[in-house]
Amino acid sequence: MKIALDAMGGDYAPAATVEGAIEALNEDRNISVILVGNEAEIYSELKKRDCADLPVTIKHASQIVEMDESPLAALRRKKDSSVRVAVDLVKSGDADAMVSAGNSGVVMATSLYVLGKLPGVERPAIAAVMPSLKDHFVLIDAGANVDCKPLHLYQFAIMGEAYARYIFDIESPRVGLLGIGEEDAKGNELTRESFKLIKDSHINFMGNIEGKDIFSGEADVVVCDGFVGNIALKVSEGLAEAMSKMLKREILENASGKIGALFLKNALQNFKKKTDYSEYGGAPLLGISKPCIISHGRSTSKAIKNAVKVAGAFHSKGILDIISEEFNRGLSGREAVAMEE
Amino acid sequence: MKIALDAMGGDYAPAATVEGAIEALNEDRNISVILVGNEAEIYSELKKRDCADLPVTIKHASQIVEMDESPLAALRRKKDSSVRVAVDLVKSGDADAMVSAGNSGVVMATSLYVLGKLPGVERPAIAAVMPSLKDHFVLIDAGANVDCKPLHLYQFAIMGEAYARYIFDIESPRVGLLGIGEEDAKGNELTRESFKLIKDSHINFMGNIEGKDIFSGEADVVVCDGFVGNIALKVSEGLAEAMSKMLKREILENASGKIGALFLKNALQNFKKKTDYSEYGGAPLLGISKPCIISHGRSTSKAIKNAVKVAGAFHSKGILDIISEEFNRGLSGREAVAMEE
Repeated sequence: MKIALDAMGGDYAPAATVEGAIEALNEDRNISVILVGNEAEIYSELKKRDCADLPVTIKHASQIVEMDESPLAALRRKKDSSVRVAVDLVKSGDADAMVSAGNSGVVMATSLYVLGKLPGVERPAIAAVMPSLKDHFVLIDAGANVDCKPLHLYQFAIMGEAYARYIFDIESPRVGLLGIGEEDAKGNELTRESFKLIKDSHINFMGNIEGKDIFSGEADVVVCDGFVGNIALKVSEGLAEAMSKMLKREILENASGKIGALFLKNALQNFKKKTDYSEYGGAPLLGISKPCIISHGRSTSKAIKNAVKVAGAFHSKGILDIISEEFNRGLSGREAVAMEE
Repeated sequence: MKIALDAMGGDYAPAATVEGAIEALNEDRNISVILVGNEAEIYSELKKRDCADLPVTIKHASQIVEMDESPLAALRRKKDSSVRVAVDLVKSGDADAMVSAGNSGVVMATSLYVLGKLPGVERPAIAAVMPSLKDHFVLIDAGANVDCKPLHLYQFAIMGEAYARYIFDIESPRVGLLGIGEEDAKGNELTRESFKLIKDSHINFMGNIEGKDIFSGEADVVVCDGFVGNIALKVSEGLAEAMSKMLKREILENASGKIGALFLKNALQNFKKKTDYSEYGGAPLLGISKPCIISHGRSTSKAIKNAVKVAGAFHSKGILDIISEEFNRGLSGREAVAMEE
């Protein structure tokens, strides 16, 4: 399948994006990649690498979206940006999925505007995969919607559950609502109302899950609004980095520590791999009519490689069809909300 | 000064609370402790320890508040609980401050009901001290108020700044608003409005701070609503624990890792100390008219010891007087909010 990759998006683009695309193509022979962006720059990066036999092409785009640009301004003024052209390729059917590590607000707005939502979906949401002591879990919404209503959280639960079922290959993922206490009645106004909606659904709902328990692996899907989800994601990222730095500092300050570090090298490397953001690559924007994968702004080539592979799997497993079916079966939750009002 | 300690509060009470009190008394000779709770149980714990010369007394309370009890039910039905009696001792002037590791909702409701708020304060908030790469920072509100208005976050900023000034001994603490982007206009409805209020105050306001940056040490005070704050606090706690477990697992699975771990022992211990919740003991409920310190439900004796010492410092440094002065100077923010409405 064909993946349109925004080659200009992210702090280390286009070197990291081109390198990541080539790594993905070497690892997965079912994928072809269209690198979207400044043709000369991309070509110069490709030339440095051994990729003559790989299914990679370039699609020129004359503009670049800046990291601090507003979605509205980008949509209006940058109709030939690498993000926009990559999304347009999906719209026209020239690509099956798109990946961008650029300004995530602009990627979301552009996907929504150009590709639209799946029928029944009120708000697309970012589904980020995070590590747990047992394996992984899906955090939804990781940052697309800062102010949400109970219906939105209910729909995130439906979409997150369908996604987890297929990427983790489990029959009935356990879904938790991120809250501040395990009892039903705990939480804020939003979570208390969302709790009732999710509880009445077909979902394997374990109730509220506290922040301290998300890494234990009890829940396969953790549902929250995009503001809270982004804070949870970023706090985890910041803490994991800070802890690694603290540990490194302690080792360096300590003579026998340095010797110990040599012996511990493998253990520390595995640990780093387990907690490294770039291992998980990209997070899909669930609810958009076509596969759109958002990558971290600080994506390395490894993160891009993994995001491209996520896009491939996302497309080939037909996850959007599964979500569509759920909503077609009348699970959008609108009925339940209407009855309550 | 006299600290009333809820000896029955917390998962490991009364053993951990009695032990923690004795450790605190051994370390700080300016403190005396009143252990509040079941006299026979407390006495039996005291008998096991060497404390004949220490200034510790018992105040009997016949009831215990359960961890899942609702604040309203506890206030109505448990007027002789260890929490209530400890707070009553502060009210009557028999104690200068109180500490509890019990049901935090009940501790908050009881303090508020019995002791009341400082003039001008709309909502008391929990100020938790957390570690950063540079030193520490104050997270406010760490869980007292789940649904907040901009005026509340503004007041948390005022109180948190005053607290940080005195516990960290710095002239002008840098205050950040926890958000999902650094730009002024980013965030949800609540943070966007709060941003304007805090920006117009005397506070050394650095603007929005993202979740990934709170551990860098750039901000001395991080302001958010109690729902978000509790999630941030608990996610950090859960991740720190999970990371320690992952690291341990990697070391154990690895033969040369075991040898390395021996060499690394000091480094790992210092690291654990730096990220260990119990090192920071208790979090004051800022805005209540007297010093009330909330400790973690899972408090060990070390956490209790540190909470008792926090209570002592809180009282001796006159932090409540400082906060009162701020509000007396007309900084409650009500005027600003009224003008906007």
